Amino acid sequence: MSAFLLAAEGDVVSLSGGNLGYVFAVACIGVVALVMAAVFRREVLSADEGTANMQAIARGVQEGAAAYLNRQFKTLGGFAVLAFLLLLVLPGDWNVRVGRSIFFLVGAVFSALIGYLGMWLSVRANLRVAAAARDQGRDPAMRVAFRTGGTVGMATVGLGLLGAALVVLLYRDDAPSVLEGFGFGAALLAMFMRVGGGIFTKAADVGADLVGKVEQNIPEDDPRNAATIADNVGDNVGDCAGMAADLFESYAVTLVAALILGKVAFGEQGLVFPLIVPAIGALTAVLGVYITRTRPGENGLRAINRSFYISAVVSAVLCVVAAFVYLPSSFAELSDVSREIAAHDGDPRIVAAGAVLLGIVLAGVILSLTGYFTGTEHRPVQDIGKTSLTGPATVILSGFAVGLESAVYTALVIGAAVYAAFLLGGGVAMVALFAIALAGCGLLTTVGVIVAMDTFGPVSDNAQGIAEMSGDVDGPAAQILTELDAVGNTTKAITKGIAIATAVLAATALFGSYNGAVNEALAAAGAQAGELTTAFVRNVDVPNVLVGLVIGAAVVFLFSGLAVNAVGRAAGAVVFEVRRQFREIPGIMDGTGRPEYGKVVDICTRDSLQELATPGLLAAMAPIAVGFGLGVGPLAGYLAGAIAAGTLMAILLANSGGSWDNAKKLVEDGHHGGKGSEAHAATVIGDTVGDPFKDTAGPAINPLIKVMNLVAVLIAPAVVQLSVGDSANTPLRLGIAVFAVLVIVTVVTISRRRPTAMGAEQDRDAVSAQVG
Amino acid sequence: MSAFLLAAEGDVVSLSGGNLGYVFAVACIGVVALVMAAVFRREVLSADEGTANMQAIARGVQEGAAAYLNRQFKTLGGFAVLAFLLLLVLPGDWNVRVGRSIFFLVGAVFSALIGYLGMWLSVRANLRVAAAARDQGRDPAMRVAFRTGGTVGMATVGLGLLGAALVVLLYRDDAPSVLEGFGFGAALLAMFMRVGGGIFTKAADVGADLVGKVEQNIPEDDPRNAATIADNVGDNVGDCAGMAADLFESYAVTLVAALILGKVAFGEQGLVFPLIVPAIGALTAVLGVYITRTRPGENGLRAINRSFYISAVVSAVLCVVAAFVYLPSSFAELSDVSREIAAHDGDPRIVAAGAVLLGIVLAGVILSLTGYFTGTEHRPVQDIGKTSLTGPATVILSGFAVGLESAVYTALVIGAAVYAAFLLGGGVAMVALFAIALAGCGLLTTVGVIVAMDTFGPVSDNAQGIAEMSGDVDGPAAQILTELDAVGNTTKAITKGIAIATAVLAATALFGSYNGAVNEALAAAGAQAGELTTAFVRNVDVPNVLVGLVIGAAVVFLFSGLAVNAVGRAAGAVVFEVRRQFREIPGIMDGTGRPEYGKVVDICTRDSLQELATPGLLAAMAPIAVGFGLGVGPLAGYLAGAIAAGTLMAILLANSGGSWDNAKKLVEDGHHGGKGSEAHAATVIGDTVGDPFKDTAGPAINPLIKVMNLVAVLIAPAVVQLSVGDSANTPLRLGIAVFAVLVIVTVVTISRRRPTAMGAEQDRDAVSAQVG
Repeated sequence: MSAFLLAAEGDVVSLSGGNLGYVFAVACIGVVALVMAAVFRREVLSADEGTANMQAIARGVQEGAAAYLNRQFKTLGGFAVLAFLLLLVLPGDWNVRVGRSIFFLVGAVFSALIGYLGMWLSVRANLRVAAAARDQGRDPAMRVAFRTGGTVGMATVGLGLLGAALVVLLYRDDAPSVLEGFGFGAALLAMFMRVGGGIFTKAADVGADLVGKVEQNIPEDDPRNAATIADNVGDNVGDCAGMAADLFESYAVTLVAALILGKVAFGEQGLVFPLIVPAIGALTAVLGVYITRTRPGENGLRAINRSFYISAVVSAVLCVVAAFVYLPSSFAELSDVSREIAAHDGDPRIVAAGAVLLGIVLAGVILSLTGYFTGTEHRPVQDIGKTSLTGPATVILSGFAVGLESAVYTALVIGAAVYAAFLLGGGVAMVALFAIALAGCGLLTTVGVIVAMDTFGPVSDNAQGIAEMSGDVDGPAAQILTELDAVGNTTKAITKGIAIATAVLAATALFGSYNGAVNEALAAAGAQAGELTTAFVRNVDVPNVLVGLVIGAAVVFLFSGLAVNAVGRAAGAVVFEVRRQFREIPGIMDGTGRPEYGKVVDICTRDSLQELATPGLLAAMAPIAVGFGLGVGPLAGYLAGAIAAGTLMAILLANSGGSWDNAKKLVEDGHHGGKGSEAHAATVIGDTVGDPFKDTAGPAINPLIKVMNLVAVLIAPAVVQLSVGDSANTPLRLGIAVFAVLVIVTVVTISRRRPTAMGAEQDRDAVSAQVG
Repeated sequence: MSAFLLAAEGDVVSLSGGNLGYVFAVACIGVVALVMAAVFRREVLSADEGTANMQAIARGVQEGAAAYLNRQFKTLGGFAVLAFLLLLVLPGDWNVRVGRSIFFLVGAVFSALIGYLGMWLSVRANLRVAAAARDQGRDPAMRVAFRTGGTVGMATVGLGLLGAALVVLLYRDDAPSVLEGFGFGAALLAMFMRVGGGIFTKAADVGADLVGKVEQNIPEDDPRNAATIADNVGDNVGDCAGMAADLFESYAVTLVAALILGKVAFGEQGLVFPLIVPAIGALTAVLGVYITRTRPGENGLRAINRSFYISAVVSAVLCVVAAFVYLPSSFAELSDVSREIAAHDGDPRIVAAGAVLLGIVLAGVILSLTGYFTGTEHRPVQDIGKTSLTGPATVILSGFAVGLESAVYTALVIGAAVYAAFLLGGGVAMVALFAIALAGCGLLTTVGVIVAMDTFGPVSDNAQGIAEMSGDVDGPAAQILTELDAVGNTTKAITKGIAIATAVLAATALFGSYNGAVNEALAAAGAQAGELTTAFVRNVDVPNVLVGLVIGAAVVFLFSGLAVNAVGRAAGAVVFEVRRQFREIPGIMDGTGRPEYGKVVDICTRDSLQELATPGLLAAMAPIAVGFGLGVGPLAGYLAGAIAAGTLMAILLANSGGSWDNAKKLVEDGHHGGKGSEAHAATVIGDTVGDPFKDTAGPAINPLIKVMNLVAVLIAPAVVQLSVGDSANTPLRLGIAVFAVLVIVTVVTISRRRPTAMGAEQDRDAVSAQVG
């Protein structure tokens, strides 16, 4: 803790009294958000818990989820300690390094906390939602589900604001470097939680579907299926815990990028304004959560969308007011900026307000684009539904094409926002980058409501599961839960679009701090012009940068492939276990025998923790290999390639998955033959393919991009130090690269050697006999 | 024709007598290659034509294929004339512009000729292969098939060498600009032929499979299926004509890139050496075709691989000898190079020989990588086969993951080759780029054999089709044709890997000529330093370049999505037609009624020509929109994004498709339950999904990348001219960009409005009734 004090005792003059006051105010708003989270949480817990039967089932889910997260945190603890130490070894001022390492841990712990809270509350909210649907009707059920999301949303916002404000208060001028640690911790942990939780949830889901729906022809969440409890646990550790950690990470990293650039572009005010914007968002999110009420006969999604738009508009107005009240009318009046920036003839208020508005509008556009491509009432999903008449192959092809197309439009919209923010900068690079980061902050103002919307999905899904398994809920109450589940599907897809947009904005902006780090390190190393070989050129048309670019794009593909394969393998193990139970435990099908649910939970836990290391290490090691091996130019190319391919791939996977899921719902609603028809079977296959796309590989790409970006920013000075000047050390530099490559090759090889989706070898003959 | 004379009368001193002789020699080798093509062709045509029944079927295929290509050429004629005129409007010296436009047409016509020849000979070779298998056994059948490929291969090499040598002889110093036209013509036509033929072949194939194999449970190529003739026509217009044009284009563009850069990097010798390397390849390809003989009991693929490796090794040795004999030992001794290059302390012989060797080794590595990921005897396909036991969803997921993984490794290998060639340049940019282009020439030495290998695939496939339909071939002869078909599957996948590698190498090298064009235009416009805004910066870490990069990657995704969708729509129309015939023509199933094959051919012809415009215009217009709209910096980013995403996407699509196809073959060979089992049905679904991946979208990405690159190189001077200096004209510049965007939006909108895969509206109820 001494590092805190040291830093605080240091250079404290750079924030004037007034601005210090603003930052304190932001920290207080962070605390208010946490208090609101506690209020929402109490509201959720005070709801009725339903029948004893439902409680018993929920307890199984609670125990499984808690056990998984505890084991996951133990596994990740090792990684965190390792990263903590590695951060200390990197070059830089000792105090800053200590602060960065400590705040790395703070970011990681906050990320974990949010994830844990998301899971903890969801597993308690699910049966309360089911009970409310059963006893009180749709609106109370929806309120409990949305309050659950509100709790997680407010906690995300609160911890994000508190963490960032704390760093600014304690470290002032050194805040940017320390913030890198904070963001890196949040992103690294979130990535692992997304991957691990994503593998768990889809292994259980796919496994349950393959045996239950496809082979035994029993409905989803049927208690005779040994994988149902695991499936429900998965919803909570993947969609709740993983997603919550991911959104916290998006929040933290975007804020970090804005603060780092703000200091350069807007001086002292640039360390404050990016905190004001999400603070406004925190307040409007409370509003959004409170005003979400369905009107009689109205679809739940419409009510949620309405609160989103209302709180977005309120945020927009308040942010513009804040910009015009807080910021001066000319760049020359900003405190502590460079001469180049002071000479900028634009109006900082317009730049800031315009950028924030861009971000808010971007959130709205993504919301409607995603709704169009994945919603049942629009043409794309209806077209996929029609192709179910020509069988599963055409369902797969049309859904894949919808995914490709939606990825293009979403990427173009994000690109347009980046370009517009870039133009706002008026040709001054740092101002343009800050505008891009501020657009990210604009997106953030909606995060509170977005988290609430997203958590709504798995909670409703689980409520339906518990209702189905307990057998205590039927008729209109079951209908309500089905409707809420469908609404949840769309809100989940929207969140993914917003999350990837934050990744692009933050990553583009972070290039500014990457360049800063490289240039500073070059100056520090006393590099001669002659030493600046092509390894330092960042021109996209230079072959080595282009090679870096291809590698960056390739890593996104490899990461996706590894995640999909991991789900396939783990799901295979689940399939064999469930089949074994059907075979060996007498009376499961007629309800006299009870499946061993715990066994499947154990398999999912073990396999997802095993599978998590490979993509995780790939993400951390690949930029190290490229940076130390090929230089900072190719590393810049690498990041750009990862951003471009990652954006498209993330949306392709999320939206094709979402559209397959809803095409299935369309058929289940009675189109093209309805439940039990050939068309239904075809869409079930599409949905199963989409599961690991949309819930494992796709969403993990967002934290992946951020982790790789922050690793690059963190190692850039070390790469420069080992490349030029007196500290140049080619053997050490290449040695580090070779080590990183070896780690990647080793983990990928181990992962490829694992038994395939077919699970244990000895089981194969039995199955062949059964199938053949 | 006057432009030819004008140019020839101009500056003729730049090629010394000795070098002129070399170029003449290369042109002669081109003629020799064409003669060899004629020899091989005669050998093919002299083979026995089989039974009257077989001839009747072949005639149907011949007529359908010729009719399609003729209509396609008429459609493309309009595009070609338009491009011819647009090329004349671009800035530059009038003589050069006329030459470029004329050689644009030459390139396009050569591409079309090669495609036509590929189709013309294949539809005559297929029944001869079937007859040879029936009457003489495997080796003669294989010889006819491989000689067919040899004819196309030698014609490709011959026309490529002849065209390039002619440009060098006629235009000397201006050759680079004229060569751009030649390459652009070849690439543009090849792209259209790939897309059109790809849609035709897969619409027919998927349509035939969906109704035949999946619904009616009749075997592939069963004459009761009305889509069989169309399926066989498709093999010839897609896999033969499209592929042949594509490989010619790869050949031409790579050669063009090498000659353009050669002139800058190696002076006069740089205009000659890149012609010597593929000329050597032409000679060794003849060797390769002649030595292909299977040993007793040997698999056909092994024999083909052996001749590939032998001719590659001979090429490698001869190229190294040529480098050491022809090139001087120091850069200072090269004629007509800049002072910077003359000062290079490397050895041009080592640079050139090393680069060519890199290319040859790259071809070999891609060959074995592709074989590993798509061959039935290796783990990836076997793993996919195993997942067939858990149904189609897991087959799709595992095949997709295999595709992702193989894309990563292949892209990394290509990246490594680029990087190694870059290092050979020893820090001098132009030498490094030339080395990369020379590596492409190294790849080219293998093209003769590669084309022969690839054409082998569809010819064998067709031979099997004709045998099956005629009913005149059975027992061991049918077995032989099945084996040859499987060999053809793998050779086809290999070609796609090689083709995309040429795209990366050529595109990376062409960045050199892009930069040259930009800098020359800047100098010509008399641009002031103050005018060089961020629109000219090509740094990958600048937001607008990054936006260009995202757009470039997005266009690849959009192009793929459009191609897949087009196949889906056209296949839907085929399905409905075949179903209609089964319903309305009595006695088809018991063989007393005859299906109307021509109707399905007509549907495929009409639909594929309709669908071809959208992706084609997208490819031509998108770089225009980005270049004129955002500037040359973002356009460079755009190209880089397209290269990175295009490489990965092309291999993902090709290899996932190839591995699904062979997983199906594995099951058909009796594994996991064999033909007719659930596992077989699952792999048939995988294969159907893979069809448009591997034969429509995937292979079209290679010419797409080249078309976009050459469009960028061609428009770069105009963009600069309209951006800076006295000729700056922002309204015109933005007007062009807006026009290009409008064209794209219009064609994409029209394409999205077309009826979906379900075909005609009125048919739907009938089908719902049938299915439900």
